[in-house]
Amino acid sequence: MPRVLVIGAGGVGVITALSLWFKRESDVSLVVRSDYDKVSRHGYTIESCDYGQLEGWRPHNIYRTVEDAAAEANERGYDYVVVTTKNIIDGPADSRLPNIIRPVLEKNKKLHGSQLTTHILLVQNGIDIEKDILQEFPKDEYQYTVLSGIQLIGSTKIGTAHISQVSQDYLTCGAFDPQDTAAVQAANEFVKMYSNEGHNFVEFDPRVRYSRWKKLVYNAAINTSTALVGLDVPRCLEFGVDKKSTEVEVFRPAMEEIIAIAASEGITIEEKFITTFTEITRNKVFKPSMCVDRDKGQLMELEVILGNPIRIARKNGVPTPTLSVLYYLLVLVQARLKEQKGLLKFDEQTARLVNE
Amino acid sequence: MPRVLVIGAGGVGVITALSLWFKRESDVSLVVRSDYDKVSRHGYTIESCDYGQLEGWRPHNIYRTVEDAAAEANERGYDYVVVTTKNIIDGPADSRLPNIIRPVLEKNKKLHGSQLTTHILLVQNGIDIEKDILQEFPKDEYQYTVLSGIQLIGSTKIGTAHISQVSQDYLTCGAFDPQDTAAVQAANEFVKMYSNEGHNFVEFDPRVRYSRWKKLVYNAAINTSTALVGLDVPRCLEFGVDKKSTEVEVFRPAMEEIIAIAASEGITIEEKFITTFTEITRNKVFKPSMCVDRDKGQLMELEVILGNPIRIARKNGVPTPTLSVLYYLLVLVQARLKEQKGLLKFDEQTARLVNE
Repeated sequence: MPRVLVIGAGGVGVITALSLWFKRESDVSLVVRSDYDKVSRHGYTIESCDYGQLEGWRPHNIYRTVEDAAAEANERGYDYVVVTTKNIIDGPADSRLPNIIRPVLEKNKKLHGSQLTTHILLVQNGIDIEKDILQEFPKDEYQYTVLSGIQLIGSTKIGTAHISQVSQDYLTCGAFDPQDTAAVQAANEFVKMYSNEGHNFVEFDPRVRYSRWKKLVYNAAINTSTALVGLDVPRCLEFGVDKKSTEVEVFRPAMEEIIAIAASEGITIEEKFITTFTEITRNKVFKPSMCVDRDKGQLMELEVILGNPIRIARKNGVPTPTLSVLYYLLVLVQARLKEQKGLLKFDEQTARLVNE
Repeated sequence: MPRVLVIGAGGVGVITALSLWFKRESDVSLVVRSDYDKVSRHGYTIESCDYGQLEGWRPHNIYRTVEDAAAEANERGYDYVVVTTKNIIDGPADSRLPNIIRPVLEKNKKLHGSQLTTHILLVQNGIDIEKDILQEFPKDEYQYTVLSGIQLIGSTKIGTAHISQVSQDYLTCGAFDPQDTAAVQAANEFVKMYSNEGHNFVEFDPRVRYSRWKKLVYNAAINTSTALVGLDVPRCLEFGVDKKSTEVEVFRPAMEEIIAIAASEGITIEEKFITTFTEITRNKVFKPSMCVDRDKGQLMELEVILGNPIRIARKNGVPTPTLSVLYYLLVLVQARLKEQKGLLKFDEQTARLVNE
């Protein structure tokens, strides 16, 4: 059986581990940072719309850190590493993606050299998120593929070792590089060992970059705007001038700009999705992830959701008047969150950033 | 002696009343809403950089409301009505400018008909703020002029009946309509009776509309941006990408747009002020008024500072890509503040505004 290590034990990561465990086609390890002691003694309490009520559930193995998971790996290492943590490329060093997965890649290399291919599945938001990995781990030194997971799921950690999943798990999985046949094969294999008919919904994604740009139409325009104003999506729509200005003056222009940036990369996103994404949460009170992070004082996935698209637009000469204002204002909100967390220092006497 | 009624007893209003009282060329009445009982018994405690330490200070008359001030006016009525309250044209009805001053205008009319001209001095932010008055009080029924005051002052109410003034009072005063000779004369008279040499600094403003557009270059671009991100100005500048993006991507484009809107109205604001206003608070931690209001959960002067310029731009066909995003996002922040204050209701079940 393939051995899978799931990194990140929030609402998404635990249901990911549970889905694999339920299928019984893989050996599942989970990195459980803060809840380790409780999970180790009593397991998880899970209310899941996909799998029902579970008490004392555990995957095959749990570890406190990725380092522990690497150190205690048996002689087989890990075939799949599934990353479900937030992707904050401007955050502290230990939260950066290459640093998170490094222990497993090094261990696999040490155990098997080029005989074992590590399949790294990123179940994360944003565009160009695989590039940091390709840059930090040269292909002639490490044997790996990078897979993309885009997940729609309503699942939240509501207490220590306590998960509530309220909407069905919908996962699309594919290869970032569609020419990489090993990656395509690994993605198909993962779809098979993750799919639980009648419970979740999983499918192979033949066009990862298209799917990611499509999701960005929503995230770069709507998720970002809600984070700036601190309101859920229906309130944003209803509170506009004549109940229209948010859609007409902010959401739609921003979404048009994302579609134009995607087009400059040769990716065609159909215009109809602008209406789809505007309507999708009009009738249900829902706060997108960046707004939730801001409210909780956590760093937002700003750079992978909006910074990377803006940089592509710059490179390709695509004008982004709306997205730029959103981005450069959110850079300030992100800095405010960093200052609150002590990740940057500002000296009020000199009115300058303190370089550390 | 002219009789002056000052409306609004915050940091600005109290120092305004004090400055007039100090000169001893007018009879000064002040509307003191929430602090009335304490002021009536013990007077004000004031630490003023312009007038020193005062204990138990009172103007000639104090009133709890404008209605009381009108009812108890002697047979002379009021020559000047100085309004120092915030100007929230989208706020509750009793905070709207025409409703605030109506009792005095009606009283003066009843006492003297067209024999007494009421000079209404608006010491408030924004553009087109006089239009509501002109619309609500027909010139053939009411005898009045409308004067503009633009005040730079650091003065705050730091406790009940307790005012701290930390930076010198600088007031420019003129006629909204420079063709109105009665208004020009009244503005000059006010400058004279307000000016305390060696204490404050006051001058006649021959170009009110120019001065107001000039101040908007700062307020519509910088004050607004700080309110969206919840940071003082130096932090906004320092926290930008490479310490530059806030200035280059937000402040300057927004200021350019205000200058373009002013130009469409025949008002030329010199480009040099863009640099002046960017630098003016770079080295001193300072939160502009809209940011302070947002932090305190109070409504912001959004419509007179940014809504009115946007509407003028629409009318004149001036593109405002930056200001529009700022405005339509701040409309949502303002609505969030209104919901918090119970001024609007949102039904989470239907995800719709409740029409009342």
